[in-house]
Amino acid sequence: MLISNIEFFYDFGSPKSFFVHKLLPNIAKKYNVEVIPKPILLGGVFKLTNNQSPMETFKDVKGKKEYENQETTRFVKRYNLAFQWNPYFPVNTIGVMRGAIYTNKKDFGDLYTETIFQAMWVDQKKMDDPTVISETLTAAGLPTEEIMEATQTPIVKAGLIDATNHAVARNIFGAPTMFVGNEMFFGKEGLDEIDFLLSNQ
Amino acid sequence: MLISNIEFFYDFGSPKSFFVHKLLPNIAKKYNVEVIPKPILLGGVFKLTNNQSPMETFKDVKGKKEYENQETTRFVKRYNLAFQWNPYFPVNTIGVMRGAIYTNKKDFGDLYTETIFQAMWVDQKKMDDPTVISETLTAAGLPTEEIMEATQTPIVKAGLIDATNHAVARNIFGAPTMFVGNEMFFGKEGLDEIDFLLSNQ
Repeated sequence: MLISNIEFFYDFGSPKSFFVHKLLPNIAKKYNVEVIPKPILLGGVFKLTNNQSPMETFKDVKGKKEYENQETTRFVKRYNLAFQWNPYFPVNTIGVMRGAIYTNKKDFGDLYTETIFQAMWVDQKKMDDPTVISETLTAAGLPTEEIMEATQTPIVKAGLIDATNHAVARNIFGAPTMFVGNEMFFGKEGLDEIDFLLSNQ
Repeated sequence: MLISNIEFFYDFGSPKSFFVHKLLPNIAKKYNVEVIPKPILLGGVFKLTNNQSPMETFKDVKGKKEYENQETTRFVKRYNLAFQWNPYFPVNTIGVMRGAIYTNKKDFGDLYTETIFQAMWVDQKKMDDPTVISETLTAAGLPTEEIMEATQTPIVKAGLIDATNHAVARNIFGAPTMFVGNEMFFGKEGLDEIDFLLSNQ
């Protein structure tokens, strides 16, 4: 199989999507493959697959949350990532994900993605507040008005729904999820698996 | 911190405990540290922590089981492990775990552990059936009668309960779980983390 790209399904509200957003490009570069960003609404995926966030799933399990925090701290340190838990977590991401659908094919798409991830998981902004979103976009030099208006259009709203349905049709149940060809990888653990796969092609 | 050992909490009924049983010794050997086996009853841990098996937790999530199987297949291939799903899974492991408590400090402890893991996750034996357990022990040259009788003694029964309570007191909620000093690692993903930790000491 000749591998030319990695599809990366993400939601800004998922901290592990942030980790993959930060680390996957280095792996892709090493093997000269492209990362194709695929914005989806994780809340929609959860409804369609009868899944929920790990926080919800394990909320009554003694010791689990403490371990997840410990493991996340180790991961962030190991890979030298700027990361802060968002105090507003879980954040309703429908606005910023619609923005990702709109900007995905624009030449400022990468800047948008980086800006929102940074605001959410480094700068601890409340990214379901339109005023905060607007300020964040403007500070980054993005076309705020154009993006904010686009997120209210039926075509962008439908685009996010379609992208989410499409993800579930490919057996995605959470985020981050990556595809290399037909091979699916879930979670930040997929990074090492993808590196191994590409090193053996 | 001078690291001299890795504590390995396991239950024979957990396929990922089997993976760690197979792969952790190589990592330990590389850094000249000892693996200390810590048998526990996973069903007991689940009751005490309000946890359950991933199979139960995610049984209604579309796509999750298929992904877990795909990911397990990749893992087994990558690390060249002989592994077959056990057709009797989930198996009640109280008998074989009591055997592990009894044999743990004996000079045939390692042979017992290897024998039961092999029977469960390579040879697809029904390891909650005393006849099958006895045949398996005898075929491996283990003292079948001594072990089977020991598993019926109050001291061994209490030993497994104590070990399980002790694990939960250390914030263990599942298996496999490893400790390096006070640092806890859960799941087969802990292998890579431990390797990284030991490589940096």
